[in-house]
Amino acid sequence: MPQITRDQVRVPADVMPESRDEYIANYLKATRGTGRLMLFACDQKIEHLNKDFYGEGIDIADAKPEHLFEIGRQGVCGVLAGQRGLIAQYAADYPEINYLVKMNSKTNIVPGSQDDPYSPQLYDLDAVLAMREAGVNVVGIGYTIYLGSEYESTMMAEAGELIAQAHANGLLVVLWIYPRGKAVKAEKDPALIAGAAGVALCLGADFVKVNPPKPEDGTAPAEALKVATMASGRTGLVCAGGSTVDAETFLTQLYDQIHTGGAVGNATGRNIHQRSLDEAVRLTKAISAITLADYSVADALAVFNGEKDFSL
Amino acid sequence: MPQITRDQVRVPADVMPESRDEYIANYLKATRGTGRLMLFACDQKIEHLNKDFYGEGIDIADAKPEHLFEIGRQGVCGVLAGQRGLIAQYAADYPEINYLVKMNSKTNIVPGSQDDPYSPQLYDLDAVLAMREAGVNVVGIGYTIYLGSEYESTMMAEAGELIAQAHANGLLVVLWIYPRGKAVKAEKDPALIAGAAGVALCLGADFVKVNPPKPEDGTAPAEALKVATMASGRTGLVCAGGSTVDAETFLTQLYDQIHTGGAVGNATGRNIHQRSLDEAVRLTKAISAITLADYSVADALAVFNGEKDFSL
Amino acid sequence: MPQITRDQVRVPADVMPESRDEYIANYLKATRGTGRLMLFACDQKIEHLNKDFYGEGIDIADAKPEHLFEIGRQGVCGVLAGQRGLIAQYAADYPEINYLVKMNSKTNIVPGSQDDPYSPQLYDLDAVLAMREAGVNVVGIGYTIYLGSEYESTMMAEAGELIAQAHANGLLVVLWIYPRGKAVKAEKDPALIAGAAGVALCLGADFVKVNPPKPEDGTAPAEALKVATMASGRTGLVCAGGSTVDAETFLTQLYDQIHTGGAVGNATGRNIHQRSLDEAVRLTKAISAITLADYSVADALAVFNGEKDFSL
Amino acid sequence: MPQITRDQVRVPADVMPESRDEYIANYLKATRGTGRLMLFACDQKIEHLNKDFYGEGIDIADAKPEHLFEIGRQGVCGVLAGQRGLIAQYAADYPEINYLVKMNSKTNIVPGSQDDPYSPQLYDLDAVLAMREAGVNVVGIGYTIYLGSEYESTMMAEAGELIAQAHANGLLVVLWIYPRGKAVKAEKDPALIAGAAGVALCLGADFVKVNPPKPEDGTAPAEALKVATMASGRTGLVCAGGSTVDAETFLTQLYDQIHTGGAVGNATGRNIHQRSLDEAVRLTKAISAITLADYSVADALAVFNGEKDFSL
Amino acid sequence: MPQITRDQVRVPADVMPESRDEYIANYLKATRGTGRLMLFACDQKIEHLNKDFYGEGIDIADAKPEHLFEIGRQGVCGVLAGQRGLIAQYAADYPEINYLVKMNSKTNIVPGSQDDPYSPQLYDLDAVLAMREAGVNVVGIGYTIYLGSEYESTMMAEAGELIAQAHANGLLVVLWIYPRGKAVKAEKDPALIAGAAGVALCLGADFVKVNPPKPEDGTAPAEALKVATMASGRTGLVCAGGSTVDAETFLTQLYDQIHTGGAVGNATGRNIHQRSLDEAVRLTKAISAITLADYSVADALAVFNGEKDFSL
Repeated sequence: MPQITRDQVRVPADVMPESRDEYIANYLKATRGTGRLMLFACDQKIEHLNKDFYGEGIDIADAKPEHLFEIGRQGVCGVLAGQRGLIAQYAADYPEINYLVKMNSKTNIVPGSQDDPYSPQLYDLDAVLAMREAGVNVVGIGYTIYLGSEYESTMMAEAGELIAQAHANGLLVVLWIYPRGKAVKAEKDPALIAGAAGVALCLGADFVKVNPPKPEDGTAPAEALKVATMASGRTGLVCAGGSTVDAETFLTQLYDQIHTGGAVGNATGRNIHQRSLDEAVRLTKAISAITLADYSVADALAVFNGEKDFSL
Repeated sequence: MPQITRDQVRVPADVMPESRDEYIANYLKATRGTGRLMLFACDQKIEHLNKDFYGEGIDIADAKPEHLFEIGRQGVCGVLAGQRGLIAQYAADYPEINYLVKMNSKTNIVPGSQDDPYSPQLYDLDAVLAMREAGVNVVGIGYTIYLGSEYESTMMAEAGELIAQAHANGLLVVLWIYPRGKAVKAEKDPALIAGAAGVALCLGADFVKVNPPKPEDGTAPAEALKVATMASGRTGLVCAGGSTVDAETFLTQLYDQIHTGGAVGNATGRNIHQRSLDEAVRLTKAISAITLADYSVADALAVFNGEKDFSL
Repeated sequence: MPQITRDQVRVPADVMPESRDEYIANYLKATRGTGRLMLFACDQKIEHLNKDFYGEGIDIADAKPEHLFEIGRQGVCGVLAGQRGLIAQYAADYPEINYLVKMNSKTNIVPGSQDDPYSPQLYDLDAVLAMREAGVNVVGIGYTIYLGSEYESTMMAEAGELIAQAHANGLLVVLWIYPRGKAVKAEKDPALIAGAAGVALCLGADFVKVNPPKPEDGTAPAEALKVATMASGRTGLVCAGGSTVDAETFLTQLYDQIHTGGAVGNATGRNIHQRSLDEAVRLTKAISAITLADYSVADALAVFNGEKDFSL
Repeated sequence: MPQITRDQVRVPADVMPESRDEYIANYLKATRGTGRLMLFACDQKIEHLNKDFYGEGIDIADAKPEHLFEIGRQGVCGVLAGQRGLIAQYAADYPEINYLVKMNSKTNIVPGSQDDPYSPQLYDLDAVLAMREAGVNVVGIGYTIYLGSEYESTMMAEAGELIAQAHANGLLVVLWIYPRGKAVKAEKDPALIAGAAGVALCLGADFVKVNPPKPEDGTAPAEALKVATMASGRTGLVCAGGSTVDAETFLTQLYDQIHTGGAVGNATGRNIHQRSLDEAVRLTKAISAITLADYSVADALAVFNGEKDFSL
Repeated sequence: MPQITRDQVRVPADVMPESRDEYIANYLKATRGTGRLMLFACDQKIEHLNKDFYGEGIDIADAKPEHLFEIGRQGVCGVLAGQRGLIAQYAADYPEINYLVKMNSKTNIVPGSQDDPYSPQLYDLDAVLAMREAGVNVVGIGYTIYLGSEYESTMMAEAGELIAQAHANGLLVVLWIYPRGKAVKAEKDPALIAGAAGVALCLGADFVKVNPPKPEDGTAPAEALKVATMASGRTGLVCAGGSTVDAETFLTQLYDQIHTGGAVGNATGRNIHQRSLDEAVRLTKAISAITLADYSVADALAVFNGEKDFSL
């Protein structure tokens, strides 16, 4: 598995000198020493309410939140991303997981036709730092910006301030950036996705999670992603996993995003946790095999099918 | 009566080490050492103005606020939940009651057709901590979120910050979560109630008070409640008592919510305080007999009818 | 004159121990040792602009603000309520008056048809505490809430926080609560007035000023007031004096509010200051004779007519 | 020239004891030892953009901002009122001027038909106190309130808080109060102007700048002003100079405002700075001759015409 | 090359004495010792998203953000202006560049027809000061105001406060001021541009970046600019470079802005970075030759064409 050394970690200039070691340690933990990010997204209980966790096509195991943490423990992930309270209720029993605290969230009850989206910051960073101080293995924070929303300014400002504070304290930052709102005609327009990537850089994020671009001109999505990964510069770009598809399709997309598109990882939620514990665990390993160890799709599929094992 | 030990209290990871003992003590006080919650809701003087306290079918004793505290003293409750000011005016004379300070409230004068609901935070936590410091027996706080309101974001943010602060200081948190607003078509839709339960968990609440789900497909409410209690995970779920019904109906519902639905208690207001002091006191005992001591409905009814006594 | 002792003053539990003596002293000063409140309301220069102070039927003495302070000095009042700045400009020359600082105010220029009412907090409590520290005889604060306004939430929150701070520092709090706004059909509906009284209690006010209820069913106003004074519990209720009427009508209403309705005082402005200094002074004495010394209406009228004197 | 002594300066009760000497010194500086105020208003570069400084009928000297400071140095003024930044850029070269920092300002681009006026506070008082600490001769602050605007509440609150802070630190406060907004039918209605004057007093201002009233019933403006100067009580009232008129008209109006209307000074901008340096300097002297030394109109005109000199 | 000495630097009075040396050093660095400003604007990745960096007519080098920093290093600029996060990610590898941190930014997704523009402050000044403390060569900050927007008040207030804080800490301030919004009919109207210049002065900025005026009456733009440079007084005025044009046109405009219009520099972005590295570097040198060393257009063109070299 390709590994980077402590010296190869590029530390942003807004990480205060006294937090430099902490930042490097967090970066190596989150990327499992590879510089690549496998993010297990577990923030949907607010974002999508219970619809992602219970119903047709979803394993009943997913109805209980502990499922997420069991996957986190038994599978192979870089970070488990969830809201502060969720982590606070389970972290003591799952201390080995790297946690990324999602700082904002909204439900999907109010439709876009009624109001543009705003996802409010739910707690200040001090609350997160206190949890770290109290022993929770928090390596970073996350924040979602709906670019082009009428509330873009509030989210940009909350994110901007949080990034400064998080870096100063040695925490990583992942931005979720989704163009959305009345003014946004095509949320997955490649130029817009590239724009989102550039915004993440200007705000100083370490990683940005975007939706895979959907070109209208026949370009392959992974090809179109190249522009975005150039635009994001030193901010690593990862794509959202989206709704559940079959494993081969999913792993192939991921492989192309990394090897063609220049992505440095992935951010996957529903595709993982809507499966039974065993299957979900194997999927995290297959994803990580591609993301962190440059496996081929075929080899990763073998991991998913239980024909090969993968661990770090 | 089933009892839990100090070691069995699961302390969230955002309770600071120096507040750990305080949290455990508050948890055991609020749940009367059982892990179950009997919450006597006394916040309606703002929420419903005087309509819940005076008029046809309401005992005249309820016209005076001291009635609430007499019930709290003579009856059997886990906590008495009311606004900070209400508690401040009476607590010195009723020191034995466990108080849960309701942090926000709104009146019902502005109708939903005019504006979506927002219930503002009425004081910061420091004001509550100061009262505790001054000797008032405050064991926790409460906050109401109207999920799906256009003001959801403000309430989510206020709740998110308060929970972090309350836990850090060893206080319990109960969230009241009601889906409500122009975007909410069916406030008691089981999936929505389960969603509300999950939101409470992600925010880190210890308990969440929701309305009992009303399935449209013939499922029994208590059966439908199961999905919600799974979704809430380590956050204990209790149902709101709603408007006054006869005792047998009420106690049967409660029994089913706990034994079929997986609820860990109840949150009852009007059903209790709209009765004469003696009847109200007996009802708190009957409710607690089911909630805290696993009585059958028949035995609890006997307590309500004064044929059996119940105390802790 | 009925007097209460220091021990009979009921101190709310949010008065910090170190401010307890201060609170008791302020309570006794404001109520002239009786537990009853005679509040001279002098906040109309913002609320009603100059219309209450100059024009037909108003003594020319009222055109100059010093008139208010002369009445305060020569008459018999519990507290003179006015905005911070007004008090700051005159207090050094009228040190014997008990001041109640009105914390919010609005003008009446924007009509209700254009916007619902919001009366903004004009300064923080620190500014009031500093004045007290500098020697001004401030015994409490006041705040107006327009219940049912679309801005109810902001006023509830400002009041809620101020009450906590004021009590913590030993100051009394009087809330003015008026139901008003597009959603309010009948501002003086008895049930609504009773609701307002209950809100004041839940916020923790020491006194609440409401408009006298106007029953539509033929009940006498003072009779209707009983429900409100029950609802307000330990928060003393006083009625607003309203626009100027003849002294006998005024004093009879007041007598009934106290002896039938259960009010514990009065809050009067225009009825007093729109008269000449001499007449205004005599009216404060007549009002105080009823409020503080349980005079009959006839005896109080004799005081007003200069046939009897009244002092404390 | 009539002079007042230090003992005759009436110090508001919200001036902290340790700032009392500072307040008295500032009061005497601003009023040139007379208790009267000659305010040179230089805040129009934001309020009216460049239209007041360049164009037909305006001396070309006014195109450069240094013109304002030259007038301030060579002429006779009580204070020069301008925004913090303007003063910061020139004060080191014009140390002898008394500066009044205008705390809020807006442009006139958005018309009243589009939105009601709001003039935002542009910096906190600490920024002003720091400048004073660093040696700038700041004697007070100013703030504009648009009474009757839908944003009245925000401006009232900003002003209310600033006055408390400014007085606590020994600075004078001048309020500009203009009724304006959709709800205001006649901005110069005498009753409204009197109302504005009373508002300034209740907020605790030392001086209030209002527009001269325009009675519709044939009353002379200066006569109508009397009601306002009574209403403002201990807050000194001065009238805005308005757009440029000939010197005799201007000086006559000023004389009448003071000697008939009870004004204690004037606040003049465009009438002064739109002239050549020499003429502007002479006009400040003529104005100050009336304001500070009770000159007749004829004598003041002689000063303006260079036939007499006037200095302090 | 004309140079100014430390003593010739005019230090605003709001620079605290302990920060005076820092301010002078920053001023000399930013102006390369000349008092003139060559600002390389690199904030478009948020303002214009990826459209300014990728597409027809744009060199592919510009697709990667590192391009901006390579130009900054190899070319001749006064300051490189970009958002805090962008600078934080690259500054450690480009320590020789003078950085100006852009404090606010918005995307251009929401069109003016949907909402007036507001560009939110993205972080507080402390975050910038911390970066300086940690060794980043930050010499100043920038902020954009959309004058005439319905959100003008918020931007004016954020800018006003930031300028006070920045100066107090020895940092320069550049304001970008663009009249824009429903109320603005002609964004480049000379009188409006002059107004913007005056606003910058009143807020206390050191430099203001405006669009070159577009007179409708046939006046040459540089001639029309004179009024604006008079209006800005001690605040140096520079014009925005706008969209990419050929070098000769660009340099001629710049020459005229300085030598006819009274501008003290330039602020150029797209015109520079949309070219290949080599060409972009030569353009920065040509621009600086005019701005900092009073080269003729012909000589500057020779620099751009590589026929002459220019360095400091």
